[in-house]
Amino acid sequence: MIKVTAGIDIGGTGTQFGLVDPDGQVLTEGKVDTRGTHSFEEFIDKIAAFLRQHLVENPGLELTGIGVGAPSGNYYTGTITDAPNLPWKGTLDVVQLLNDRFHVPVVLSNDANATAMGEKVFGAAKDIKDFVMITLGTGLGSGIVSSQQLVIGSQSMAAEFGHVMVRDKGGRLCNCGRRGCLETYVSATGIKRTLTSLLAKHPCASALRSVSFDDLTSKDIAHAARSGDVLAKKAFQKTGRVLGKNLANLVAIMNPEAIFLFGGLAQAGDLIFNPTRRALEENLLDMYKGKVQVLPSALGSQGAAILGAASLAHQQKDYLHYELS
Amino acid sequence: MIKVTAGIDIGGTGTQFGLVDPDGQVLTEGKVDTRGTHSFEEFIDKIAAFLRQHLVENPGLELTGIGVGAPSGNYYTGTITDAPNLPWKGTLDVVQLLNDRFHVPVVLSNDANATAMGEKVFGAAKDIKDFVMITLGTGLGSGIVSSQQLVIGSQSMAAEFGHVMVRDKGGRLCNCGRRGCLETYVSATGIKRTLTSLLAKHPCASALRSVSFDDLTSKDIAHAARSGDVLAKKAFQKTGRVLGKNLANLVAIMNPEAIFLFGGLAQAGDLIFNPTRRALEENLLDMYKGKVQVLPSALGSQGAAILGAASLAHQQKDYLHYELS
Repeated sequence: MIKVTAGIDIGGTGTQFGLVDPDGQVLTEGKVDTRGTHSFEEFIDKIAAFLRQHLVENPGLELTGIGVGAPSGNYYTGTITDAPNLPWKGTLDVVQLLNDRFHVPVVLSNDANATAMGEKVFGAAKDIKDFVMITLGTGLGSGIVSSQQLVIGSQSMAAEFGHVMVRDKGGRLCNCGRRGCLETYVSATGIKRTLTSLLAKHPCASALRSVSFDDLTSKDIAHAARSGDVLAKKAFQKTGRVLGKNLANLVAIMNPEAIFLFGGLAQAGDLIFNPTRRALEENLLDMYKGKVQVLPSALGSQGAAILGAASLAHQQKDYLHYELS
Repeated sequence: MIKVTAGIDIGGTGTQFGLVDPDGQVLTEGKVDTRGTHSFEEFIDKIAAFLRQHLVENPGLELTGIGVGAPSGNYYTGTITDAPNLPWKGTLDVVQLLNDRFHVPVVLSNDANATAMGEKVFGAAKDIKDFVMITLGTGLGSGIVSSQQLVIGSQSMAAEFGHVMVRDKGGRLCNCGRRGCLETYVSATGIKRTLTSLLAKHPCASALRSVSFDDLTSKDIAHAARSGDVLAKKAFQKTGRVLGKNLANLVAIMNPEAIFLFGGLAQAGDLIFNPTRRALEENLLDMYKGKVQVLPSALGSQGAAILGAASLAHQQKDYLHYELS
């Protein structure tokens, strides 16, 4: 028997799921439109049917646990309540519904925590007991692992590093209603805002002057920077500088061995890693200098969401709050 | 038999130690001048002799562990290396030397971590699994407990919250060589600097104009504030505002249930707690609002150092790196 875990990544538009073997191979995977079913139970049934079919067709596989990554996923209650970007309101009993169907331990957490655990269980953080995962997408998500364990927090709401305020006064308006949050500077949206403000400030030519804010992507900015566009390069430098300086503060709190960058903006490689590493080193307290690596995630983009979710089922046994079966 | 633990708090000038019962009663305590012995081994022998005598005289006591709080105490190696404010240079084998003498588990950590664990084991954090301890002395120390465990970090150097940089650019020079560290604003020294800058800025009368910077204490500022001194009151408000705003950032990272304030400046009571709580609530992300208590430590100042050190011996067994006996 090969012991496998299931990973389910619930996103605002699409949901991915699959079965993962102990080496991190995704044995099967499926997708479902998050907005395509009427009730949440129906949605779970669709996923369960898919997973069950594969398990029935492959009697050599034994399901030992299920991990679910979802926006606002509460680790302690095993529920999602009024997630702003999911179609179902009220309280969704994710863990209970899946446990009823499979009778294995089910662990729920948010997507950034899932990515952090994915790196720990299947990626480049296997031998690292203290690290931070920064996911650079539309916003900035983070997952923190301290002494091998996810930092969950009292309300299951820790590691909102994107909402650390990085300006003395004012700063950019954030969707959270406050000003100066890190993710307004450091994220795919953040770098668009930076580039746009550079276009306004400087008169020099830029290929990006012909692209609207709505059409602009961080990929476009990376492409322009690689073609020598001065403002695009400057946007990356500024973004990395803000990230690096604030990571120096996070290092003073968590003293991690490594910081992983994941997501669209991290794909820009040296463009983002170099200024981030430089600003981090410049701002670190002496005792941390040269001791913190800034690394790309080893999960890749393919299958990362499923691996991350599945890895949650590998959290240490005594740390699980849900072993209902 | 009553199981007791020993707590040893090594300070720059004085060292306190004692035996503590499971209810947090200090059964006996002693003091030794940290600078009064030639070698570190001699120093340890003095402490060991004191503890041993009490154990011999009280055969009903069974020593089950020793905790040591010390500046730069390394949790993993059990050693102190080149601590700037201790008289002995090189590597001091604290854990090994004590284990050789008593054959019980010995745990070493820094003093701020010891205070945090003291609150957990013997104080007001017994039922709190996620909290932060802020010690306001000459500098700002911190200890962080996440899911019942101390956040130690990869080099045993986590929770240096006093060295989070809180200014966009510049800021006050810190002893660490950088600028804008939180402790240059929030600590006994920080509030002295704030009061002094207020004396320079405002022409109004203040009882504190007759006191030199060297003679000024945070107690003087508290006393003046309670007597209605406008600048002294303003100094506390500013200090609380900087602390509260930056605690809001720490909450976004750790999501603690409570934040404890300890040390000289915390003794000022409402003068520091009120502006801190107000600024914290104003700056918190919505989902944390009303969920984080800011509380005085329940350890008191008497015996707190010994209780804190002793509590380190109560860290969960599987978390101990030193069980040499």
